[in-house]
Amino acid sequence: MSNNLLAGKKGIIFGALDEKSIAWKTALACHAQGAQLVLTNAPVALRMGEINKLAEAVQAPVIGADVTNMDDLKKLFEESQKQFNGGVDFVLHSIGMSLNVRKGKHYTELDYEWNKKTLDISAMSLHRVLRTAWEMDAINEWGSVVALTYIAAQRVFPDYNEMADAKALLESVARSFGYQYGVKKKVRINTISQSPTRTTAGSGVKGFDAFIDYAEKMSPLGNAPAEACADYCVSLFSDLTRYVTMQNLFHDGGFSLTGVSEAVINSIMPPSE
Amino acid sequence: MSNNLLAGKKGIIFGALDEKSIAWKTALACHAQGAQLVLTNAPVALRMGEINKLAEAVQAPVIGADVTNMDDLKKLFEESQKQFNGGVDFVLHSIGMSLNVRKGKHYTELDYEWNKKTLDISAMSLHRVLRTAWEMDAINEWGSVVALTYIAAQRVFPDYNEMADAKALLESVARSFGYQYGVKKKVRINTISQSPTRTTAGSGVKGFDAFIDYAEKMSPLGNAPAEACADYCVSLFSDLTRYVTMQNLFHDGGFSLTGVSEAVINSIMPPSE
Amino acid sequence: MSNNLLAGKKGIIFGALDEKSIAWKTALACHAQGAQLVLTNAPVALRMGEINKLAEAVQAPVIGADVTNMDDLKKLFEESQKQFNGGVDFVLHSIGMSLNVRKGKHYTELDYEWNKKTLDISAMSLHRVLRTAWEMDAINEWGSVVALTYIAAQRVFPDYNEMADAKALLESVARSFGYQYGVKKKVRINTISQSPTRTTAGSGVKGFDAFIDYAEKMSPLGNAPAEACADYCVSLFSDLTRYVTMQNLFHDGGFSLTGVSEAVINSIMPPSE
Amino acid sequence: MSNNLLAGKKGIIFGALDEKSIAWKTALACHAQGAQLVLTNAPVALRMGEINKLAEAVQAPVIGADVTNMDDLKKLFEESQKQFNGGVDFVLHSIGMSLNVRKGKHYTELDYEWNKKTLDISAMSLHRVLRTAWEMDAINEWGSVVALTYIAAQRVFPDYNEMADAKALLESVARSFGYQYGVKKKVRINTISQSPTRTTAGSGVKGFDAFIDYAEKMSPLGNAPAEACADYCVSLFSDLTRYVTMQNLFHDGGFSLTGVSEAVINSIMPPSE
Repeated sequence: MSNNLLAGKKGIIFGALDEKSIAWKTALACHAQGAQLVLTNAPVALRMGEINKLAEAVQAPVIGADVTNMDDLKKLFEESQKQFNGGVDFVLHSIGMSLNVRKGKHYTELDYEWNKKTLDISAMSLHRVLRTAWEMDAINEWGSVVALTYIAAQRVFPDYNEMADAKALLESVARSFGYQYGVKKKVRINTISQSPTRTTAGSGVKGFDAFIDYAEKMSPLGNAPAEACADYCVSLFSDLTRYVTMQNLFHDGGFSLTGVSEAVINSIMPPSE
Repeated sequence: MSNNLLAGKKGIIFGALDEKSIAWKTALACHAQGAQLVLTNAPVALRMGEINKLAEAVQAPVIGADVTNMDDLKKLFEESQKQFNGGVDFVLHSIGMSLNVRKGKHYTELDYEWNKKTLDISAMSLHRVLRTAWEMDAINEWGSVVALTYIAAQRVFPDYNEMADAKALLESVARSFGYQYGVKKKVRINTISQSPTRTTAGSGVKGFDAFIDYAEKMSPLGNAPAEACADYCVSLFSDLTRYVTMQNLFHDGGFSLTGVSEAVINSIMPPSE
Repeated sequence: MSNNLLAGKKGIIFGALDEKSIAWKTALACHAQGAQLVLTNAPVALRMGEINKLAEAVQAPVIGADVTNMDDLKKLFEESQKQFNGGVDFVLHSIGMSLNVRKGKHYTELDYEWNKKTLDISAMSLHRVLRTAWEMDAINEWGSVVALTYIAAQRVFPDYNEMADAKALLESVARSFGYQYGVKKKVRINTISQSPTRTTAGSGVKGFDAFIDYAEKMSPLGNAPAEACADYCVSLFSDLTRYVTMQNLFHDGGFSLTGVSEAVINSIMPPSE
Repeated sequence: MSNNLLAGKKGIIFGALDEKSIAWKTALACHAQGAQLVLTNAPVALRMGEINKLAEAVQAPVIGADVTNMDDLKKLFEESQKQFNGGVDFVLHSIGMSLNVRKGKHYTELDYEWNKKTLDISAMSLHRVLRTAWEMDAINEWGSVVALTYIAAQRVFPDYNEMADAKALLESVARSFGYQYGVKKKVRINTISQSPTRTTAGSGVKGFDAFIDYAEKMSPLGNAPAEACADYCVSLFSDLTRYVTMQNLFHDGGFSLTGVSEAVINSIMPPSE
């Protein structure tokens, strides 16, 4: 379904790893809505090679960039502007990495050097991306930036581990930079707090399957699928949402505002009648 | 600008008083996006007669309904379903009324009978509308209900008076019924917390002009205009936002997440250099 | 354990029904900390007669008052001031009543006349109490008012029904009046959002036992007992917390900020190893 | 005023720099309430020498520790346990440092190496302290840990710069570790979000004086003084607040829940009558 909602708009999509990725589906949805795209990911992710399939599908170049490297980011924006023959209208930041999670370190046993990397790649990378764009004046007025996050930034989900702290930092960066970029150039910056999603990255989290079932039961609409998240990104990149900024927006089927559902209570203690 | 985003969708718009009303502009925007509409307002508001201009513009019937009267609401949904030849896809609730505000009663001197009316008309009316639809099964699956609210539900703005409490109640009703309607029929219910807006209703609030200037200075993007709010409603009525429910969504240029802006600080204490 | 923390302070306790009541235990704790008290409850609650046991234990008079009756409230404050030979230092509001809950009406089937009573008794009563004190200038500078509430004001717990909306309204009144009374006379007003508690009132809620087990499993410290809530009230009535106002304070063993606990996940899906 | 509220309790106070420090005043207040203390600060802060005055006043040893050094922290807890002849009952974390702020770097021009230090010293230090205690089982059951924070973690105060992000991270660590330590040993961990305070550290922030006046005008009770914050810490270290955990507690005279005050509106636009 397309309404040409992003006709004429140009965007950079960070983080499309494979076809399960939210970023992947967002690229497809943006393309279907008429946007022109640049895809980017870390060099190591690019070497896995899947992204070329996406690049063909959305007719977009792939430009590698390590988000902790300011030179890479500068080059990315330079080449994107060339590609677009002008400024950028939207950016999707879908980036997270935790060696502590991957290696099964408990939250009380973090390796602090890995933790620094987690914070740098998963959170401060948003600052680096925005600051690069800011210095190059690369984002057009009323541009829209979305970063994906998770409710563990507000409440504890033990298995989410240090990524909870990274997401809290990410959301703060979105607010802090959102103020600056809003005042300077009407650029809006929001985070989408998405339901747990069976992506390749997500599946690394311990106890993920049990948790995804729990979240499904807790959410009045069920867990939000990745495709729906892509649609929500489209709405936030469009001109229909120009005055929404600095917000953390839950896209979760109502999970965040459900204290307990009847389905969860019943699965713990079946009703006796 | 239209993208036919609401093609085939049918909606009921409560509360279009005159062309300054957010509900008025939302009706125009929904119509432009291809929706079919029914307009409704309180009989006393209808007698002011402006709404017929809107009815013509959006080719919609006007059906009067007192939102505190369950028979009226039933008739409204019955006639709407006839009109639509089927169920309702979206509803805008833009309803608020406070005699205590209108008559200049201070928050510490509320007339409690008027207060009951305020709560009934401004908040419980959402429950009444939803319950009517629920009993008649009048809203289609994945339908979307939006009620307009204000940040005074979270923080004190003294001149907003008892409407703050009414909005807090309204937002709670949206959550409570949002859970029920989500579980039962995937209907989502959200509130939009809009910037202060120079509507005919809004202008009754004491000190409103000074406040609107303050909010403009405090918001990185400036206050969100009514037209932008109409656009935001369109996005929430569309299929792009299907998994957003029970949320209170700030549409305010960043006001809600700005602790203080440089513009406000400077207007209180001009920088010395 | 007493530290004479409330020596010289005078307080009014609303809502002690029987020895399971949080208000009952708060009266005992305040008395133990050196406070002088007045007990009050609705005439119908007084007729159940238990409160006289408490009155003896804390050497306090019992003054009946219907919290929806302004004359009763005026008389209550007049007699309290006589009793105290001066102003009031603290007030506990522990009042809630819902006929819809009691009669088993589902949230989608509320009786609206009963709902009005619920809102009036459970929420607007706080406004009435404060407004009575305000007009009589009955609360001393730096006085402290606490009202008991529940997290259903923020997130949906289906069985809590319309009381969720009433508590949201109550918390808004606490903020709104808290601003006014703070500016005028440094009186602070807060709400305590307490764990589910097996009081006589609480046990009327459907599925309460299953829910209390769930909350116990979800809270890192377990559910907060009523005695601990009484202690927390003491801290808020004391001079140690003078600059805390307009807040909703969770006293819940961490429930509110736990997204999911390992204990809950395990009870839904036992770990396979 | 003392009520012996902390009699028999033992605590470690991080961050007392000079007599303006909140940590300094908290040490005095805890000592007055009967607690036994250990004082600690970074070696560089100790060399400024003021802390010995405090050490005498509260009869406590001073043990230097770099909070980014796990060996230092281990030694601190070892020596504290020797000193206390047992476990620790409470900890105050009052630590923050930003070279970017000190050197006047704008938020959009952060030095990322300094930023890493800011996050490590101001936020991850709480994790390091707690993890050291956790591994040594150094905190007694029902122990209480408080970290000082600021509302910039929720809303943007532009001059607060990267410290906003650091405080958001700090608060997340308090929640994440609060869950773990609560489940394991009933230890509670909270943050106090304090009014802007004229400490030696605070005064480094640009535009601080104008801001402190603004906050004073915005807060119904005025800004909370450092002494009051010390009292609030006492209440959180005491047994009166045992079931409060993982919370961020505003101690700010009502600032956080005031959208705008009449005093602020009047200072921007004086009333015409």
